[in-house]
Amino acid sequence: MKRNLLAVLFPLCAYLALAGCAHDTGRTDALYQTSTLNALMEGVYDGTISVGELKKNGDFGIGTFNALDGEMVGLDGVFYQVKGDGTVLVAADVLRTPFAVVKFFSADKTAGLSGPLDLDGLMRRLDDMLPTRNSFYAVRIEGTFPWIKTRSVAARRKPYPGLSEAVKDQSVFEFRDIRGTIIGLRCPDFVKGLNMPGYHFHFISADRKSGGHLLGCRMESATVMIDETGDFRLVHPQSEGFRRSDLGKDHGPDLEKAER
Amino acid sequence: MKRNLLAVLFPLCAYLALAGCAHDTGRTDALYQTSTLNALMEGVYDGTISVGELKKNGDFGIGTFNALDGEMVGLDGVFYQVKGDGTVLVAADVLRTPFAVVKFFSADKTAGLSGPLDLDGLMRRLDDMLPTRNSFYAVRIEGTFPWIKTRSVAARRKPYPGLSEAVKDQSVFEFRDIRGTIIGLRCPDFVKGLNMPGYHFHFISADRKSGGHLLGCRMESATVMIDETGDFRLVHPQSEGFRRSDLGKDHGPDLEKAER
Repeated sequence: MKRNLLAVLFPLCAYLALAGCAHDTGRTDALYQTSTLNALMEGVYDGTISVGELKKNGDFGIGTFNALDGEMVGLDGVFYQVKGDGTVLVAADVLRTPFAVVKFFSADKTAGLSGPLDLDGLMRRLDDMLPTRNSFYAVRIEGTFPWIKTRSVAARRKPYPGLSEAVKDQSVFEFRDIRGTIIGLRCPDFVKGLNMPGYHFHFISADRKSGGHLLGCRMESATVMIDETGDFRLVHPQSEGFRRSDLGKDHGPDLEKAER
Repeated sequence: MKRNLLAVLFPLCAYLALAGCAHDTGRTDALYQTSTLNALMEGVYDGTISVGELKKNGDFGIGTFNALDGEMVGLDGVFYQVKGDGTVLVAADVLRTPFAVVKFFSADKTAGLSGPLDLDGLMRRLDDMLPTRNSFYAVRIEGTFPWIKTRSVAARRKPYPGLSEAVKDQSVFEFRDIRGTIIGLRCPDFVKGLNMPGYHFHFISADRKSGGHLLGCRMESATVMIDETGDFRLVHPQSEGFRRSDLGKDHGPDLEKAER
């Protein structure tokens, strides 16, 4: 009787202990952002959250690294650092980021894309697939691209310039007939000040040797996966840089220039 | 021996089951918002989240109810509905809200306020107490107020007017020498489009019979409690009203008129 009770109680309790924590340790559907794009525009580049911490909140995403040291690409749980010289490293968990947006990617919709499409055409095609523009989307596009143009940035020293200034000496890379993945995010218009309304794409090649912030592309056929969420979580750095900056400015046109 | 084992295992498992779930069932420090103030400006008044659901995310906060049926005041885990005629009801858990912002209130700072202060003076005094304007704050002020002016709104029928239109026939109430609590929220400048930058106050009297959206006040001495957080969670309604609205407009001046 007691043995039976034990046999029942122990697995039951263990199950409760694990199942009850699903929200903590498991894959939530929330889009998780650290800091704001306005803070980046103001030169708040001190990393506050580690890559290890980011991984607890997503396996897919985009961002940058401490001191603006390259472009971040998160794909299938691996976070890559596309350095200013174009080399791609796997980012160690201890590296820190001043700005990143991540999500556990789980496609709500998967479809084929047939080209020819350039970047503007791609964004219009994606818009046609979305049920509403008032939600947040992670977008993953797999394909072989006739042409891809990316950029990355090198780490900056303090005093940090604003993002508009910092990207003036960005490195630009072009690739032909390259297989890889576009890692994208679409935010609604009302995120102004927090993030960039519309699309923001990064790219990484299938061999994980090339990538960066996507500036242009041509595509013929590709597979697109779209993951929608209405759950947006913004977590602020507690750094003095963030706390002391003027984060209420309207950077609309400058943001377009810095990020598109 | 088995009895001993049971005696140890059961409480241990029960503890694990509960402690491990602290983030789910316990008091997080996040500010939780459903929908956006822009959506309210566009007349998206259909309630989507229940008061019961809100309570899982906070015991303190402000908002409104389905069809704009009064002002919401959350205080010490009880959610009150200040109806358009000024009566105050305890909101049932099944009531729904189209817009609310809640938090588990836990004071980071408590201080005495000595007057005389009017509403503008109060906001300046509070600003002087904040370590940064780039964070989110819940503000609780307890006192006896020489003068309080509040408003509330009556439920609207479809097609819903926008908030600027809806508040034109708000009811306004004035109280003299009234004891009660100001329930407030301060959002940073970069929330434009999501919420109102700056302060947003509701009021409820100590006897829980009067309250509403705070339009003006005079205070002599009061106690203020400030609770800061850098963790902001925005959860969208999945309603068609929300999904189909134009939520990217700049409602700045209209918002001031509707809410201040």
